[in-house]
This record gives sequence, C-alpha cells and structure tokens, in this order.
Amino acid sequence: MRETVLVSAGEEACAAAALLERLRARGPRVHCITDGVAQSFTASVLLAMGCVPSMTLAAEEIESFVVRSDALVVGLGAFDRERREAAGIAVDTARRHKVPWVLDPVCVDRAPPRLDFAYALMRQAPRAVRLNLAEFAALARTEPSRDAAMRYACETRTALGLTGETDLVTDGVRVSAIANGDPLMAAVIAVGSAGSALVAACLAVESDPWHATTGALVMLGVAGERAAARAAGPGSFAVAMLDALYALDAPTLLAAARVRRA
Amino acid sequence: MRETVLVSAGEEACAAAALLERLRARGPRVHCITDGVAQSFTASVLLAMGCVPSMTLAAEEIESFVVRSDALVVGLGAFDRERREAAGIAVDTARRHKVPWVLDPVCVDRAPPRLDFAYALMRQAPRAVRLNLAEFAALARTEPSRDAAMRYACETRTALGLTGETDLVTDGVRVSAIANGDPLMAAVIAVGSAGSALVAACLAVESDPWHATTGALVMLGVAGERAAARAAGPGSFAVAMLDALYALDAPTLLAAARVRRA
Amino acid sequence: MRETVLVSAGEEACAAAALLERLRARGPRVHCITDGVAQSFTASVLLAMGCVPSMTLAAEEIESFVVRSDALVVGLGAFDRERREAAGIAVDTARRHKVPWVLDPVCVDRAPPRLDFAYALMRQAPRAVRLNLAEFAALARTEPSRDAAMRYACETRTALGLTGETDLVTDGVRVSAIANGDPLMAAVIAVGSAGSALVAACLAVESDPWHATTGALVMLGVAGERAAARAAGPGSFAVAMLDALYALDAPTLLAAARVRRA
Repeated sequence: MRETVLVSAGEEACAAAALLERLRARGPRVHCITDGVAQSFTASVLLAMGCVPSMTLAAEEIESFVVRSDALVVGLGAFDRERREAAGIAVDTARRHKVPWVLDPVCVDRAPPRLDFAYALMRQAPRAVRLNLAEFAALARTEPSRDAAMRYACETRTALGLTGETDLVTDGVRVSAIANGDPLMAAVIAVGSAGSALVAACLAVESDPWHATTGALVMLGVAGERAAARAAGPGSFAVAMLDALYALDAPTLLAAARVRRA
Repeated sequence: MRETVLVSAGEEACAAAALLERLRARGPRVHCITDGVAQSFTASVLLAMGCVPSMTLAAEEIESFVVRSDALVVGLGAFDRERREAAGIAVDTARRHKVPWVLDPVCVDRAPPRLDFAYALMRQAPRAVRLNLAEFAALARTEPSRDAAMRYACETRTALGLTGETDLVTDGVRVSAIANGDPLMAAVIAVGSAGSALVAACLAVESDPWHATTGALVMLGVAGERAAARAAGPGSFAVAMLDALYALDAPTLLAAARVRRA
Repeated sequence: MRETVLVSAGEEACAAAALLERLRARGPRVHCITDGVAQSFTASVLLAMGCVPSMTLAAEEIESFVVRSDALVVGLGAFDRERREAAGIAVDTARRHKVPWVLDPVCVDRAPPRLDFAYALMRQAPRAVRLNLAEFAALARTEPSRDAAMRYACETRTALGLTGETDLVTDGVRVSAIANGDPLMAAVIAVGSAGSALVAACLAVESDPWHATTGALVMLGVAGERAAARAAGPGSFAVAMLDALYALDAPTLLAAARVRRA
C-alpha cells in the first residue's frame, strides 16, 4: 500500500505536524453528540490528544456546554429523539457563537429517516463532513468518485473527509490523499466517530477546514499504523491506538505521514 | 474441569467448527437492543467475528435496521421506556420478515417489571433464549435443573442456552453440555450480552437453533480459555478475548472444544 | 511526589486495608446512576473489586434495584431528563430503606442547570460527595481550600472526597491526605466516576463515611500507581488499572498506601 510520495507531500505533512503541536498546546474543548456505542472510545481519543471532551445530550444543558466549547461534532449513530433535539439546539448554538462543527452522517445509507435528517443538517453549514463511501453515495445521491466529492464539497461549501483504504479530503478546490492507516481500524467500533471528533478538535486550532480535516486523518492513520505494529487483534489494537495517539508528536508524524496532493 | 469427552462429542464440535466457517464467510448483520453498559463490548465481539453490528434504539429507524438485518437480539438490561418501545417494534418487524431473534432476559430475577416484559416477549416466539440459572428460575418459575430446562424449552419451542460453570443447551429434545470457558468471564461486564449476540449471529447462518446456540457458546468458551491464558486480570482478559475471537478458526475450535451430548 | 509519611499514617492505611478485606468478603451490590460514557468502566471497576454493579435508569424498575442494593451512587454526568427522574426515585428509595448514597457532581462548574440539581440533591443527605476542585468551588460557592472543605463538610454533614494531585478527605472534623495516584488517571475517562462508585461500595461495608471515602481513594490511588508502572499510555493504563484493582489485596495496600492525617 506504500505509495510513491510526490515532492508536494512534504507540505501537507508539515501542516499536519504544525497542527498537532497547536492541538497539544491549546487542548480545545470538543462537545460530541455521539451514539452510546461510540461515546467511550471517542472521548478517550480526545483525552489522549490532550483535548477536553464533553458528551451530554440533555436539552436543558447542551447549550451551556456548546457555548463553552471550541468545536462540536454531530454524529448520527443511534439517532433517537433525544439526539435529534440535542443536535438541533447544539448546531443552532454553535452557529450563533461561531463554534465550528463537523457532521458525521453515520449509516445514512441504511436508514431513510436518518438520511432526511442529514440533508437538513447539511443546510446548517457544517465546516467539515467525515464519512465513508457508502454514506457519501447516499448523502450526495451519486456514485462516489474524486470528481463527485469535489463537486459536492464545492456545492455545500464544506471540507469532505472520505475515509477508506486511502482517505480523500477535498474542499472542492484542493484534494489530499492519505495512505496511512491499517485494516484493523475497520474491525474496531467507533474509529470513524473518533476520527470525526478529531476533525472537530483540529478545526478549533485551524481555520482552514481542508487543512484541519487532512491533519486529523493523518494523525489517526499514523496512530493506526503504530498501533497495528503492537496489536494481536482488534482488542489490543484499540488499546494500542489510544497509547499511540497519546504519544504522537510532530517528528513521528512527519516521518510516518504518507499524504500528498491528489 | 477437563471432562472425559465422549465419542459423540466430536459431532457437536464439528458442527460448531462448520458453523464458525459459515459465520466468517457470510458476515451477517445483527441488530442489537442492548443496555448502555454492554453495547460497546457486544458490538466489538460481533465485529471481531466478522459480523456487522447495529445498535440503534430510535423508534423511527429501528424498523429500517431490522429489515436489513440477518438476526436480532433483545437484551433486557437497563430496560427503559425507549428500549421497551424499540423491542416491540423490532420483534414485530423481525417476525413479519422472518428474521430470527434471541431473547436475553438480563436480571429478570432482580426486577419484577422486567420479568413481566420477559413473559410477554416469550409469547413472541424467540428462536433462542440465553440466560443464567437465576434468570431461568425467575422466567420458568421453577428450580433450575436439566429436566426443568428441557420441559421449558419444549413448552416454549425455543432453544435454551443456560450459561454457568458448564453451559447447557437444549431444545427440549436434545441437550448439549459445554465445559469450555474461564471464571474470568464472570468478572467482565457484557460477556453474557455478547454471548447472546453471538447466538443471534449463528442463527443467521444455521436454521437449527439448538446447533446455533451450542456453536455460539462453544466459540465464546474457547475464546475465553485462550484469553485467560494471556490475561493478568479482567482488564487484559476483555482485551484478549476480542483478540481471541478475531483469531478463532475451525481447527482451533475443533482442538479445544469440550462439548458433548448430555 | 513521595511525601514523608508521618507516624499516624499507619492507622489510616490499616483501616483502608481492613476495609478492602471486608469489601472482598461481602461483595456488596452497588446501583449506579452514571453517564453513558462512564458506565462501562465504572461497572468494570466494581466487578474487579468483587462488587455487583447494576446501572438501570428506567423509572419503572430503578426502585426494585435500589431496594436490593447495599449502596447507591448518583453521578451528574450527561444529566438528561431520564437521569433526573431516575435520581429522584433512587435517592428517595435509598433514604427510605437506609441505603447509603454518594453524590458525584460531575462538571457542575460547566452547566448552571446541573448545579441547581446538585444543590437540591445536597439537601437529600448524601453520605459522601466525591468531586474535584472546580466542582467543589461551584458547589460550595467558595474558593477551594482545606478550611473551606472542612466547613462545607461540617455544614452539610457529609464526608467530602476532594480528588486532585493529592486527595483530601474530610467530614468536617477529621482530614486525611492521600498522595497515591498517577497523572495518567486524568487521561482516562471515568476514573472519577469509578472512584465515586468505589466510595459507595465502601460505604456498604463501613458505616463511618470518612473512613469509607479515605479507604476507597487509597485503593484507587494505589491501583493507579501499579497500573502506571505497566502502561504505555492511557489505553493500556485503563486496562492495567482493572487488573490492578482485581489483584489488590491488604498486604499490597498496606505497603503502598501513602495516607496521613492532615
């Protein structure tokens, strides 16, 4: 899977490394609307990166938390009434207070009511969207391709982080391709959700959403590779991934990043 | 605890090994109604076995998920209004679409309202029920014994998976006894819930519920033994169990299974 | 961070070791109202200590569980309507049946509606309160200090367990200081919540809340140190902490405890 790294690759890797240092220095607060299955791992990933996660969904208090947050992520996993109401208040609060927010349209390809809600949320100006190919196809109502992703990002004015064997990040103009990662990432629950939360954390310290999304996915992919080297299966991999994210520093990231303009 | 394996034991072990291969080949989708404490480990176990878990409880979308699933498990842990409503829709959908479903009557011995709900669900034709001795005693209103289990399985036309030091599986006619497992399994939350989800997964690839339930509990028990060999306590045991389930293959299962007709 | 241990330290350490033995011998049932992020780790910690956790929030059945429990812990993390209602019923049941209960006012410094609820719960006579400095400042409406903690504990007639680099436990008259622990404890979600649950478990076997709270925090701190010695980061630390709690015995605790009257 190792690709030939173009000369321009260095730039993206440097940007990701600089972003990582800002993230560690500032430790942003990230509020997460996440399904119950993913909450614990998502919060653990943010803590491992030095961020401060909060996860409440209570309608009475979510505004208090979002107002004091540096970023918000809204994941559509297990999307019950409570999460719908919470998402409405949280996104509204985020927009009023200029808190950047990320959409993670979990499994919109598998539940039509959830897809309708995702369409509505897309009109609320998420700064970035992190999703897989099947979710993209459902959300953008098109076959997934590099061109379709660019078109959709351009139309919706968001950065799109399409994760898969190679991750693709585009804001409609620029495209980056990230070859880091490991197949075990797909055997652990909540890696997608944690990735979206990390994109939100990066948006708190980087105003360019294409850089923020690229940087977050490089960090996740590099940590995944380092974890895989020590893991005997998905159980030890999830544990090692938290350790790897906690230990991740700029020199490690620079040495291991396989990201290029695409 | 090692028992003398009768000649007939080979048959059940072979059936379990064949079932494991079908499970890996097909990777069924399993929808889970599970309490918040158990969701993450249960989903992780299914993923480790190559299955596709979904866990939403939202009344609006649970039908969409169950229709697209190959099996359903309904656990009564933390049985709030949302889960009651979700269980009603899910079981109804499963019956209409002939999706096999498993009941896990968690702690019905400790909460009378939950027991009433379990009685009602038993009338909805679960293909199998996975439970411990205290839960069986409450559900069947009888002292737990081999004969009582056979009688109850016969009357309710389900396969009964009674887990304990030795697991007992019966459909009212046949009985299997599984000596695999490790005491640490009782020191980890959600092993019972994960076992029920694995029974559901096996029902997706095996129409005989007695074989499916026996096979699932053999897989879990063998993985538990292999995990215990590498664990220093319940924390590392839970991690090692996911690794062991992920690595479990038919030859390993055949060599380690201690299952016999009883 | 190692402090000079005074002569009187031996007494508190002995009391903690005796408490640990009673906890192992009796295995109390502890009902937990805890947020979804913390439920799994909290239940795992109780199981590792030989206790029997239950976590349901369902209004219909929480009374059944609390009546049969030896202690109750109410954590305010993710404090939605369901948890508010559950907390009301649970605390009321606990008081009627003389089940000791512990308050964990999670993040009351970050959400005003949650703080109001905490004030109301303080009037329901919790036997102990476990919280950090920021939460104490919000709850007691004062700058955190040893004297302020003593005053608040005296006024509210509870034992106060203030966790931080050094833990401070006071009932208004006596003060203990616990120097055990490791910085990684702050990098793992739910360690605070698990600590509160452990305080509740100790209250089930020790009627003096100051001894119970001190003992629980010593156990947690010693386990944290032993886990840190084997961990490569927060992922492996959380796993090792469960293993260390499971293995913790009185001689280990006596040798490692760094607790003194303060």
